[in-house]
Amino acid sequence: MVAEIVSVGTEILLGQIADTNAQRIGQLLPEFGIAHRFRQTVGDNLERLTEALRLALSRSDIVFTIGGLGPTEDDLTREGIAKALNDELIHDPAIEEHLRDLFRHRPEAWVGSQLRQAMRPRCSTPLPNPNGTAPGLICEKDGKVVIALPGPKGEFGPMLDGPVREHLSRLAQGGAIASRLLRVCGIGEAAVEDRIRQLVAGTNPTVAPYAKAGEVHLRITAQAKTREEAEAMLEPVARQIRAAFGSALYAEGDRTLEEVVLELLRERRCTLALAESCTGGGLGFRLTSVPGSSDVLLGGVVSYSNDAKRSLLGVPEEVLQRHGAVSAECAEAMAEGAARALGADWAVSVTGIAGPGGATPDKPVGTVWIGTFGPGGARSARFLFRQGRQGVRERSIQQALILLRERLLEA
Amino acid sequence: MVAEIVSVGTEILLGQIADTNAQRIGQLLPEFGIAHRFRQTVGDNLERLTEALRLALSRSDIVFTIGGLGPTEDDLTREGIAKALNDELIHDPAIEEHLRDLFRHRPEAWVGSQLRQAMRPRCSTPLPNPNGTAPGLICEKDGKVVIALPGPKGEFGPMLDGPVREHLSRLAQGGAIASRLLRVCGIGEAAVEDRIRQLVAGTNPTVAPYAKAGEVHLRITAQAKTREEAEAMLEPVARQIRAAFGSALYAEGDRTLEEVVLELLRERRCTLALAESCTGGGLGFRLTSVPGSSDVLLGGVVSYSNDAKRSLLGVPEEVLQRHGAVSAECAEAMAEGAARALGADWAVSVTGIAGPGGATPDKPVGTVWIGTFGPGGARSARFLFRQGRQGVRERSIQQALILLRERLLEA
Repeated sequence: MVAEIVSVGTEILLGQIADTNAQRIGQLLPEFGIAHRFRQTVGDNLERLTEALRLALSRSDIVFTIGGLGPTEDDLTREGIAKALNDELIHDPAIEEHLRDLFRHRPEAWVGSQLRQAMRPRCSTPLPNPNGTAPGLICEKDGKVVIALPGPKGEFGPMLDGPVREHLSRLAQGGAIASRLLRVCGIGEAAVEDRIRQLVAGTNPTVAPYAKAGEVHLRITAQAKTREEAEAMLEPVARQIRAAFGSALYAEGDRTLEEVVLELLRERRCTLALAESCTGGGLGFRLTSVPGSSDVLLGGVVSYSNDAKRSLLGVPEEVLQRHGAVSAECAEAMAEGAARALGADWAVSVTGIAGPGGATPDKPVGTVWIGTFGPGGARSARFLFRQGRQGVRERSIQQALILLRERLLEA
Repeated sequence: MVAEIVSVGTEILLGQIADTNAQRIGQLLPEFGIAHRFRQTVGDNLERLTEALRLALSRSDIVFTIGGLGPTEDDLTREGIAKALNDELIHDPAIEEHLRDLFRHRPEAWVGSQLRQAMRPRCSTPLPNPNGTAPGLICEKDGKVVIALPGPKGEFGPMLDGPVREHLSRLAQGGAIASRLLRVCGIGEAAVEDRIRQLVAGTNPTVAPYAKAGEVHLRITAQAKTREEAEAMLEPVARQIRAAFGSALYAEGDRTLEEVVLELLRERRCTLALAESCTGGGLGFRLTSVPGSSDVLLGGVVSYSNDAKRSLLGVPEEVLQRHGAVSAECAEAMAEGAARALGADWAVSVTGIAGPGGATPDKPVGTVWIGTFGPGGARSARFLFRQGRQGVRERSIQQALILLRERLLEA
């Protein structure tokens, strides 16, 4: 079975946004043994969209469209699919009801053009969209399938991972692929690859390293006749990888580093407090992205100013005067102060110079101190990151999680 | 003049890398008044690459290829271009010399396949590659131009910004495009379009709305003989848009909402404090992404637990008991408490139910109260977002910035 993606949107052609949705579909298809040979991108133009869809339908069994399902006049994907499939658009009262329901609490925002979203090709089945207005569509005609997905990431992702994944597993028969993700932190990509060079050179299963900010993901992929056979080929390779990395391998599958850290705290029935300076709340934002984090994370202080470090975290004036806000002493006092202020068992702190301003001769841009506080007292470590303001902040958050995990594993 | 991009590489189809090179070309073309209607992506397969190139040549004047110029057997772009242009590959001694020169200091790395990179279509002119092995190619035949660029970012970028930019400015005569971005917040996409329907229906300049989380960007694009003429066509349309949206138009160009809010505070010589519950620090993280935010933002409290709301923000026990943590009273007490704790002139607070858990019959998932505190006292407003946990959090952050901006404009 062969699939093809047609991304719709002038903003993609003009390079205003990266087409990460198409990337996600590309990652998904191998799981179902579905081949994928072409991707097309077209602007918001009915004629060219229809041309692209006709070409895709002529050579592929499944065509994904991304975007162009909104309420405005340049949202043309519904029309394009109907034309390319020689189908007609019909009005769907159930979709209209869903739309009117969404606007019940803000009737002033309802405009007539919303009703465009209640139209769909006759051959289509709507996919519910709990995160937005336009439903997705699965259109089936003349042995071809067109799957239309909305562009906004918050709507696209859940629809792909939910109903689309389910539909694909029904469509895909024959050869299968299984894969597993292993997550390693605290070791650079080249060093990771060096440690498992033989595995990376393998062909089936393959092991592909993907460098992320401050961690490396290893994807093992095996091909076989059935999903079960492919699955069985993964474990021996996973075992070799586990042996090679020990505790640096922090999780397998979808679990993120923040989930692992929260879970370690939960297992120990411990609570956590945060003290953030240059990351401005980003560590808290990342930890609280995990549902249920509130049973472990009590809260934190964003101490962007020295005053806040003194008044909310009790960092001694003398520490700030003698060592400065970016120092081991300050990082440790911040962590200890956060634990005390919030009554938490553990705390982690970040203080650094994200740049572009603020550097001194002995503290260049990218200098970051991370403090941890727990049953064994306060500790700190210095880092020098070189990835620009936002990169320095993201690496700091990552490193804070890595250090906290290391201490929790010792405890 | 019309251009088209053909990206080559199985790793792009599989979603292993984001195609940021194509994005960069997309951003460049409008500068030269070159239209861009289609993009194609193909894997490392000669037949399909040739098919994609033939299609591109049939409808476009300039075809860019990205990738597939390396030394290995799956680098097939040279062959594909020669086939699609009915040309032949010739060996170029000057390229071979450059290659051998590169390997002079590490002869052990030289393998015979490097010589593949010394082949090029007869109709081509090589583009020097000071950052890698394979040269780029400009192929001109039968009135069509194919520009072949290497995939690695460090080679692609300098070649695009150097010789390719130069070549495009020679190709593109008569005809330039200018564009401007206007940013509107607090009004939905459909309502935005409704208000400027006539402008959106226009053809030159065009006005295209792009929905972002909690805001809409309007791009005005004009075509004319010269860049200056095109620029001059933008302002009359911009004026109409400004009149239609008034203060909802928060910025023009690259300025973000967080930059605008910080600037309003700076102009008023005021400071800001934050109190975040369900956003967990995300509002602080977004504001501190702006360099120099520290002269306005003193810090904040992430009060994820009720204890933290009481002890760090002084939210009265009675407010929590009677109204709960997600209430107007709590949001206002949080904002006021943050301003007091940090000694700030202004404060903004967020408290809500991001889900999936935590809902009550009268407070469904997505219920968020946002409080502001300033010279006029505390105020609050209730919102109901429906975008899933992360979406609810991001909308809350956006809405907090919108409300703070509104109050600052009044002040």
